Amino acid sequence: MVKVAILGATGYAALELIKILLNHPEAEITALATRQEGSPHVQAIHPSLHGRLDLTCDNLSAEGICERADVAFCALPHKASMDVIPHLLAGGCKVIDLSADYRLNDPGVYEEWYGEVHTDPTRLGNTVYGLPEIWAERIPDSELVANPGCYTSTSILGLAPLIAGKLISPTEIFIDAKSGVSGAGRSPKLTTLYPECNESVSAYSVGRHRHTPEINQVLSEVGDCTVDVVFTPHLMPMDRGILCTIYTKLTREIGEDEMLDVMRDYYRDKPFVRIVEHLPATKDVTGSNFCDITIRKVGGNAIVFSCTDNLIKGAAGVAVQNFNLVCGFGETMGLLP
Amino acid sequence: MVKVAILGATGYAALELIKILLNHPEAEITALATRQEGSPHVQAIHPSLHGRLDLTCDNLSAEGICERADVAFCALPHKASMDVIPHLLAGGCKVIDLSADYRLNDPGVYEEWYGEVHTDPTRLGNTVYGLPEIWAERIPDSELVANPGCYTSTSILGLAPLIAGKLISPTEIFIDAKSGVSGAGRSPKLTTLYPECNESVSAYSVGRHRHTPEINQVLSEVGDCTVDVVFTPHLMPMDRGILCTIYTKLTREIGEDEMLDVMRDYYRDKPFVRIVEHLPATKDVTGSNFCDITIRKVGGNAIVFSCTDNLIKGAAGVAVQNFNLVCGFGETMGLLP
Amino acid sequence: MVKVAILGATGYAALELIKILLNHPEAEITALATRQEGSPHVQAIHPSLHGRLDLTCDNLSAEGICERADVAFCALPHKASMDVIPHLLAGGCKVIDLSADYRLNDPGVYEEWYGEVHTDPTRLGNTVYGLPEIWAERIPDSELVANPGCYTSTSILGLAPLIAGKLISPTEIFIDAKSGVSGAGRSPKLTTLYPECNESVSAYSVGRHRHTPEINQVLSEVGDCTVDVVFTPHLMPMDRGILCTIYTKLTREIGEDEMLDVMRDYYRDKPFVRIVEHLPATKDVTGSNFCDITIRKVGGNAIVFSCTDNLIKGAAGVAVQNFNLVCGFGETMGLLP
Amino acid sequence: MVKVAILGATGYAALELIKILLNHPEAEITALATRQEGSPHVQAIHPSLHGRLDLTCDNLSAEGICERADVAFCALPHKASMDVIPHLLAGGCKVIDLSADYRLNDPGVYEEWYGEVHTDPTRLGNTVYGLPEIWAERIPDSELVANPGCYTSTSILGLAPLIAGKLISPTEIFIDAKSGVSGAGRSPKLTTLYPECNESVSAYSVGRHRHTPEINQVLSEVGDCTVDVVFTPHLMPMDRGILCTIYTKLTREIGEDEMLDVMRDYYRDKPFVRIVEHLPATKDVTGSNFCDITIRKVGGNAIVFSCTDNLIKGAAGVAVQNFNLVCGFGETMGLLP
Repeated sequence: MVKVAILGATGYAALELIKILLNHPEAEITALATRQEGSPHVQAIHPSLHGRLDLTCDNLSAEGICERADVAFCALPHKASMDVIPHLLAGGCKVIDLSADYRLNDPGVYEEWYGEVHTDPTRLGNTVYGLPEIWAERIPDSELVANPGCYTSTSILGLAPLIAGKLISPTEIFIDAKSGVSGAGRSPKLTTLYPECNESVSAYSVGRHRHTPEINQVLSEVGDCTVDVVFTPHLMPMDRGILCTIYTKLTREIGEDEMLDVMRDYYRDKPFVRIVEHLPATKDVTGSNFCDITIRKVGGNAIVFSCTDNLIKGAAGVAVQNFNLVCGFGETMGLLP
Repeated sequence: MVKVAILGATGYAALELIKILLNHPEAEITALATRQEGSPHVQAIHPSLHGRLDLTCDNLSAEGICERADVAFCALPHKASMDVIPHLLAGGCKVIDLSADYRLNDPGVYEEWYGEVHTDPTRLGNTVYGLPEIWAERIPDSELVANPGCYTSTSILGLAPLIAGKLISPTEIFIDAKSGVSGAGRSPKLTTLYPECNESVSAYSVGRHRHTPEINQVLSEVGDCTVDVVFTPHLMPMDRGILCTIYTKLTREIGEDEMLDVMRDYYRDKPFVRIVEHLPATKDVTGSNFCDITIRKVGGNAIVFSCTDNLIKGAAGVAVQNFNLVCGFGETMGLLP
Repeated sequence: MVKVAILGATGYAALELIKILLNHPEAEITALATRQEGSPHVQAIHPSLHGRLDLTCDNLSAEGICERADVAFCALPHKASMDVIPHLLAGGCKVIDLSADYRLNDPGVYEEWYGEVHTDPTRLGNTVYGLPEIWAERIPDSELVANPGCYTSTSILGLAPLIAGKLISPTEIFIDAKSGVSGAGRSPKLTTLYPECNESVSAYSVGRHRHTPEINQVLSEVGDCTVDVVFTPHLMPMDRGILCTIYTKLTREIGEDEMLDVMRDYYRDKPFVRIVEHLPATKDVTGSNFCDITIRKVGGNAIVFSCTDNLIKGAAGVAVQNFNLVCGFGETMGLLP
Repeated sequence: MVKVAILGATGYAALELIKILLNHPEAEITALATRQEGSPHVQAIHPSLHGRLDLTCDNLSAEGICERADVAFCALPHKASMDVIPHLLAGGCKVIDLSADYRLNDPGVYEEWYGEVHTDPTRLGNTVYGLPEIWAERIPDSELVANPGCYTSTSILGLAPLIAGKLISPTEIFIDAKSGVSGAGRSPKLTTLYPECNESVSAYSVGRHRHTPEINQVLSEVGDCTVDVVFTPHLMPMDRGILCTIYTKLTREIGEDEMLDVMRDYYRDKPFVRIVEHLPATKDVTGSNFCDITIRKVGGNAIVFSCTDNLIKGAAGVAVQNFNLVCGFGETMGLLP
């Protein structure tokens, strides 16, 4: 059994992580860390765990975590992650980081989009980006894996085969992303109050959402070209689920069936990407680690539809996928029977 | 035109008040007060008012309000209301108070349920309780009207005819109340965050919700007996609407039709109570000042179903009804064509 | 008072029409027609109308309607509309048609998209398209007005100023439209069952939604050029509201402020279009006849955000706006105080 | 591996059954039956199963099912169940019946509440009622298990310890039940259309819901007395989850802590009942086979709060629990790690 700790244990992604890990045959949760005081029992924070996990959420130091765990899942906000992760690594703990702190290669880009000077810049560019469907072979040897953003995975998985195949123009891509409210986290804010979100839909952070440089970075490497997307997130009146509707220009004449074949080839032997022929609904993937994708041709354009559960494939599920690869377990362990 | 001010202008009840008053032929909104700093424009607080009302929300003193308005709607939290209302009255402003501060007759009961010493106790017991379907004749001469709570109105309107007619046992009444989330206000809290409330239902404040003594006080006077209800509120995954399902014991054999007739008689000439034969849904009254009520007999019990829009009949609508009565306008002005 | 009839009285748009017309000082509802048998009372169909309208919904002939009404609102499905409207017109009744039957100019295009031969083809091309913000001057003399589709209005209003001003490329427009479920009508279907729609979002009718030719037709006339949009509708888990997020390519360098000014100029004196600076939410317009629009510049692209209440500005509200213009009343009568 | 068939494979309970059984180490799904024609692939009916189960849904005879399966889960409507189950049993197949057909002991009571003459009356009174927390010892020897109704389980589990302990009056029990819409099934109906249910709550079938005699029958046996409950179901705007708020009269003075202890004792070693101290929310049990229960004392009354996921503990989960007991597997197999 691998002993695992979860930092930032009070949030929504952490709850999903706990639920997945409780079903994982090779993982044992040994520590829950929070920056809150008072050591609340995890069942008081997450009542759905009643009777399932008997741990308190403690304000643990990196040293305390390293004593108790072999692998740490870091579900902290950005900035808080890079404050603690170097110490976890120094203490011998492997880390799956769910924050944005180690996703970008360039400290300057980080500073531009996050408004913070990166305090661990030498690891940027040297940390594996944990999207196993793209770079599974890079993950096994890693002590630190940067788990992708939820919008990012959903967007990249929909676009990678087309970019890799040079089928679409890399600078005429419009990603219209629609997310459930859990993606905004569990800290009370007016914008995510029930009566503000319910029975309403609206865009936010147009042209400046922080997942944009991440999408561009990964796809540019995938396509060996400069990819520059327009990314527009929207808040939907639902708990969870992301649908990215992606408008692209085809570079050559190609039919829908051929595009679907390109996608199936690209994701051959990738157990969590399902290329489907129908228009997928976010509900089809709720509670699972799947990303369902299809494509439609309208005139000279290809429209990609890609959906995930933002808390699973977009956060906790892919984190466990990365954990499995880091630990040498089967990629689907704990995620599929 | 009567000049009106609204205190606590940033909340949900205030928004509904503004929308109703913008359609009211005899009211002009002349001041919006808030305890927040910075004098935000009301359109920045409530984007739905764009182009409809050109006022800022200012941190106004009682004197400032009295200079600008004849009548003040006070949509502040309890405690904040009793701090300002004596000054508004002293300044010559009439007041419709949407808080709980002047609803109870007994300062001791107030202190017991609200945990605060009442600072204006002489007005308790001398302030009219503004439920026009019960005591419309008391309202016209008032300088101060205590607007009822949302659960309270819905419960009382369902029970008053039965209590007045001695048809049910006054101490065996179970009110199972179901409310939309807007009833919990617009201050960000974990309990009213979207992902906490959505796809979930739960009870809260069992046996100790503050609307309980209000219901008992009014019904005891209506029935000239001691009424003691069990009141259990629940949070529903919806914006607005209250349904009270009320379980009572009949004191004598009586059929459903006869009970419906008792109710129709009691509310004869009350334009906002609709006695219906079907089981009402909260959606039937959304956006309106109606209270829809029906009754079913099951064994020796009568089950009452009473529903309102918590922000209209439960707050802003009845406030305008009271305003109309205080000002000598028709009771339905601005509320029905 | 103008006597009005509503055909197709059992649907959601009809309910909104009734509610608006009950508040309209110059309209009196004198007939409700349905193709269902049994003459149900309108209050049995729409419980929210209890006590407000005492009419049955009858299976009336065109002659029966003409005897009772001066103006008919036709809220029937397409095909059913063109079966009855010629008879209504022949009987002297003016008609506001909420269906698609008279929106397109070309019977061939109608047949292509609706799969039906148009049985009243001479009126196509000679019927005014009832979007008053675009062609208000054409409406007053009309005996028949084709009310626009809900997606159509929302899309056209967002794009017309840019197309008219030649600011965007007319054949590189992606409309990502998000609608509440009421837009799909009140006939029970699996796709609009609560547990199918709730907690889910998905696209439908990609590249073949019937509002597409309507958008192209109107905008092509507005711009005096060939406009060809890609239109992708999505079903949202909410009752009502449409948000169109529209991706366009700018034809020249222009800033956001200048674009907003172009929009404000275009809609000067149009009471129901509100050009706003914030990103609008559908909730801002719920229950109103407003269309809220803003614009953002991202790289060489302009992204337009346009939202309406699909049942009001997208159906019943604009129908009453057209009714007002046809009858010579003020455009906002019954819709704004 | 036990070969299992599912009859009525197109519904919501069947989907949950399939998902649970795909994770069950000792079950293999070998047949899916439906009364629909055309043999659709299960992935076309339930897109979330894409890539997970390669079976068509066929219109199979009882003989065809018995050839393929050892155990049949019957997720058909009542009446359809009793038409096929005798043939399944005759063919040697064990049956877990999710319908109401074999729950009641008395054919006369069945006929009174379901309006049908029971065609297999000799099995009534001789079929085990499959609520393992009450009568686990009866289930292992059964060829046929009657799975309880969703409201029924939730109500009975909340009341059984109090009834067994003679702590409450057995004829003064008011069950206010609140259910998500999935409980109403997957057949399109106006009452479960999205815009009818969303943003609304209402009661239905007051005093005549068919789960009432089932609750009375089981609790009367548990308490060895005549239990007669008042049961009032409500439709909530959510997919899944049931909360029963149950108002009862205490027969003697007893504190909350003591009542909680009585409950904990009663459910000692029952892995799926969690006695909690907080007020449970339906979300706490969503997707799980747990029933969360607490109790509050208000005056001389005990109010019980009991919640389940209606599709899991209320249908598919308890069915697998029964399957495990029938087959001699551990009770939690496939349901808990």
